[in-house]
Amino acid sequence: MKEKITVFDSTLRDGAQAEGISFSVEDKLRILHTLDDLGIDIIEAGNPGSNPKDIEFFERLKNEKLNHARICAFGSTRRPDTPAEEDDNLKKILDSGAEAAAIFGKASVFQTEQIIHTTKEENLKMVEESVRYLKDHGLEVIFDAEHFYDGYKEDRDYALDVVRAAERGGADWIVLCDTNGGCLPTEILEATKDVVETVKVPVGVHTHDDSGLGTANTLAAVEAGARQVQGTFLGFGERCGNANLSTIVPNLQLKMGYECLPEEKLKRLTNYSIKMAEIANFNLNGREPFIGKSAFAHKGGMHIDAVQKDPRSFEHIVPEAVGNKRRVLMSEVSGRGTIIDRIHEIDPSLTKKSKETTRIMDKIKKMEYEGYQFEGAESSVMLLMRKELGAYRPFFSIEDYKILGGKVYNDSTLLASAIVKVNVDGRTLIHAAEGDGPVNALDNALRDALANFYPAINNIRLTDFKVRVIDKGSTASKVRVLMESTDGEDIWTTVGVSTDVIEASLIALIDSIEYKLLNDLEKQMRAYKIV
Amino acid sequence: MKEKITVFDSTLRDGAQAEGISFSVEDKLRILHTLDDLGIDIIEAGNPGSNPKDIEFFERLKNEKLNHARICAFGSTRRPDTPAEEDDNLKKILDSGAEAAAIFGKASVFQTEQIIHTTKEENLKMVEESVRYLKDHGLEVIFDAEHFYDGYKEDRDYALDVVRAAERGGADWIVLCDTNGGCLPTEILEATKDVVETVKVPVGVHTHDDSGLGTANTLAAVEAGARQVQGTFLGFGERCGNANLSTIVPNLQLKMGYECLPEEKLKRLTNYSIKMAEIANFNLNGREPFIGKSAFAHKGGMHIDAVQKDPRSFEHIVPEAVGNKRRVLMSEVSGRGTIIDRIHEIDPSLTKKSKETTRIMDKIKKMEYEGYQFEGAESSVMLLMRKELGAYRPFFSIEDYKILGGKVYNDSTLLASAIVKVNVDGRTLIHAAEGDGPVNALDNALRDALANFYPAINNIRLTDFKVRVIDKGSTASKVRVLMESTDGEDIWTTVGVSTDVIEASLIALIDSIEYKLLNDLEKQMRAYKIV
Repeated sequence: MKEKITVFDSTLRDGAQAEGISFSVEDKLRILHTLDDLGIDIIEAGNPGSNPKDIEFFERLKNEKLNHARICAFGSTRRPDTPAEEDDNLKKILDSGAEAAAIFGKASVFQTEQIIHTTKEENLKMVEESVRYLKDHGLEVIFDAEHFYDGYKEDRDYALDVVRAAERGGADWIVLCDTNGGCLPTEILEATKDVVETVKVPVGVHTHDDSGLGTANTLAAVEAGARQVQGTFLGFGERCGNANLSTIVPNLQLKMGYECLPEEKLKRLTNYSIKMAEIANFNLNGREPFIGKSAFAHKGGMHIDAVQKDPRSFEHIVPEAVGNKRRVLMSEVSGRGTIIDRIHEIDPSLTKKSKETTRIMDKIKKMEYEGYQFEGAESSVMLLMRKELGAYRPFFSIEDYKILGGKVYNDSTLLASAIVKVNVDGRTLIHAAEGDGPVNALDNALRDALANFYPAINNIRLTDFKVRVIDKGSTASKVRVLMESTDGEDIWTTVGVSTDVIEASLIALIDSIEYKLLNDLEKQMRAYKIV
Repeated sequence: MKEKITVFDSTLRDGAQAEGISFSVEDKLRILHTLDDLGIDIIEAGNPGSNPKDIEFFERLKNEKLNHARICAFGSTRRPDTPAEEDDNLKKILDSGAEAAAIFGKASVFQTEQIIHTTKEENLKMVEESVRYLKDHGLEVIFDAEHFYDGYKEDRDYALDVVRAAERGGADWIVLCDTNGGCLPTEILEATKDVVETVKVPVGVHTHDDSGLGTANTLAAVEAGARQVQGTFLGFGERCGNANLSTIVPNLQLKMGYECLPEEKLKRLTNYSIKMAEIANFNLNGREPFIGKSAFAHKGGMHIDAVQKDPRSFEHIVPEAVGNKRRVLMSEVSGRGTIIDRIHEIDPSLTKKSKETTRIMDKIKKMEYEGYQFEGAESSVMLLMRKELGAYRPFFSIEDYKILGGKVYNDSTLLASAIVKVNVDGRTLIHAAEGDGPVNALDNALRDALANFYPAINNIRLTDFKVRVIDKGSTASKVRVLMESTDGEDIWTTVGVSTDVIEASLIALIDSIEYKLLNDLEKQMRAYKIV
């Protein structure tokens, strides 16, 4: 039986403090469920004391059901010289409805005296009383000993006093923080051992990556006896980011013999990472350990030869253990297993070796090379397969379109109009419309043209519309548009790629409309028992 | 006197094996001189035995003068059962004219028997004789013990035998490699100590980042006695990359007390990194330790307050020690304190309470409400402040623009052209251009129009171009465009918001050009001592 390490994710709290990251409420809910589904144990969902938006979010959470994870609210220990029961922040943590609370207190003399301007004695009381107050109200209490490792280097005795105060208060966990990310693994190892020998409460660790040592420091603390690891799933966080759980978890589980996530979830780690990055509109670094696109990509001639003899020659783990795949650059060889399942939904008679399968594989590879990414855009994949298999007849086709845009600065008029020529069942229609920008104008013109034939189009509503620049070089870069649509019953996602953002949007929009019409038709056929 | 660590850079060899990296000869020469200027000790310039292009490059190098660095050629030990003097690869190393040679041999039984298919005994001879042959011809010989750490875990005795063979051959350095990047710091520490106690030759270390531990593993080896660190300056390399010298060097020098680079060079580390990234056409990750744009960026309210009291509260080193700078990010959570510092750069006489400060605060809030996000877009903030303070005169103004786009499906023609009317110093110009989409067409037309007045515009290159849909509802959603630009010396970021992606891009582009022109003007004024 492997020993369990509790995994604590702070993407929604510390992660939101990263430069360039800002989550909508919908983004946050999707992240929450993705982390829960992955098997994360504790999800820190926000700071209700400092942020009114987070209070609203905790209200929303009261209606959400999770399968595995516990929700945690973050906040500070009580203010100096204020009783815990009168402290507004602690009250907001209770009101949040979270099962667990992570509260931070200073574990450093410098921070206590110079930054929060209180005495060492009062700081100890703040820690003990705040922990006890939340425990008395039935919460699981995680005490984050902020600046612990720097504090330990300054004044070991006081840092340990802070830890002991949290233990006296009844904390369930004491988490040691390298808040500034400046410590070295040997320092972390030694100080953590000292704490593990000092208190009976389980210990955790919270590191940052300012020295490029966030992973190593977390592993050192676990080696010293820590049994909770705090981080953010893709390493989002202040400055250089928090400890990156997508790197730490596979190290702990595959190399050090601990259990962090269910094994079958770890085998899909790469997919979860892509999904999280997509939600955050974040470009995953290709060379990210374990989950990066290049993590098992081989380019050097000698490397490729050796990997073909035996992959262990240049791979530290099997890529499948984290849901990634080997890539031999220049001479791509890719797996058919994933694709055949989808093909079987359309034509169960085909096999991995059928020429149709090969043709679909080639088409997908070619489109991925051009910048398409089908991860998450299942509806576009389904349409593509139907087209390749001949199981598809278009509901309409666009003959041409023109867009006009521009601005006259002295009266700040923004012009945007579109003309579209569509063919439906041999009839050609031309419609024109204006819009809030050329993409919107084109969308309006197309819906206008089709609504007479397919009134169901009026029920399609876009719920998400993401634009990602692929090869970032310039305004001539390719962009990928991901569109999520709904008709109130289903949600589907489609994708388009072009150097022209308008064309990319139109490709995704056409797929979205086609998918809706096809889906409606299939429903009707089922209703009349035709299939 | 600080103990010296020899720094060995392989950007031109291992770095060139990274996915997405390809260097021209000119790129290579610029990298070579940048590394030399920075104070790198040994530069591995290529593999003359396996790559004809590298042979040409070594020919070019015979005419290049370096100030500090030694040039090193990389290659394999001799082939099995071939005398060293008849081995073509070794001969090419001699012919290359390099002062130093890094030759690799297998330090693992598995790799020896299963991958290169020879015997353990012959492998030891290959190592010893190859090293001796190059030493006899006067080269500094670095023996790279490939797969050493994995080999040590399989069969300690044999791994040490390989190291001893290199010592008998007369190697100047024995470099222990974690070729697959899979080892943990504790394993590295122990095995390195063993080697340092076994041989008299100085030891080095070569790690990869497959487990996110490239930096930690290098530091562990130094702790165990290694005195040469091999890596690539920005971490380029196979799979997840090589040990990243831009992270390792500041850790060794600022935290562990060694000397790697002259101190004044370390103080410009961030500039060197930007320059290297620019040559490699690589987008530097903002959260890169020490040198990243976000490495000393503060966003959370509590962090900003504390950093303003004392930067040590949330910074592990002073940013100036590596040529980076503190940035307080503009966001909903930041107050007047953040803004007044920026205002003081333009007008030191204003205070937090000045009506100008209030006006700027209100303007920023209003724009943030409309969807702007100024964190990270300092250049747009600076221009906005100058405009509000009257410390600004536009270099040009756009009177109007028109874009035309569209597609004719039967011949798949994609149309995109733009017309722009610009006023420069009272003169009105109309220029038109085509492009890969209307944004690019407009960019081209505007640059065309302005290049005659401001030739410096031709030096502006976009390094990042991000589009984010703000309120995701539909194709009428607002989008925010963030543009990162460079002229090879500086990097700056600007922002634009509109429901029309073309208009949003243009706003960001105008700010980018204005910033560049203003910045050039300020540099000239400083050069002529006007300010």
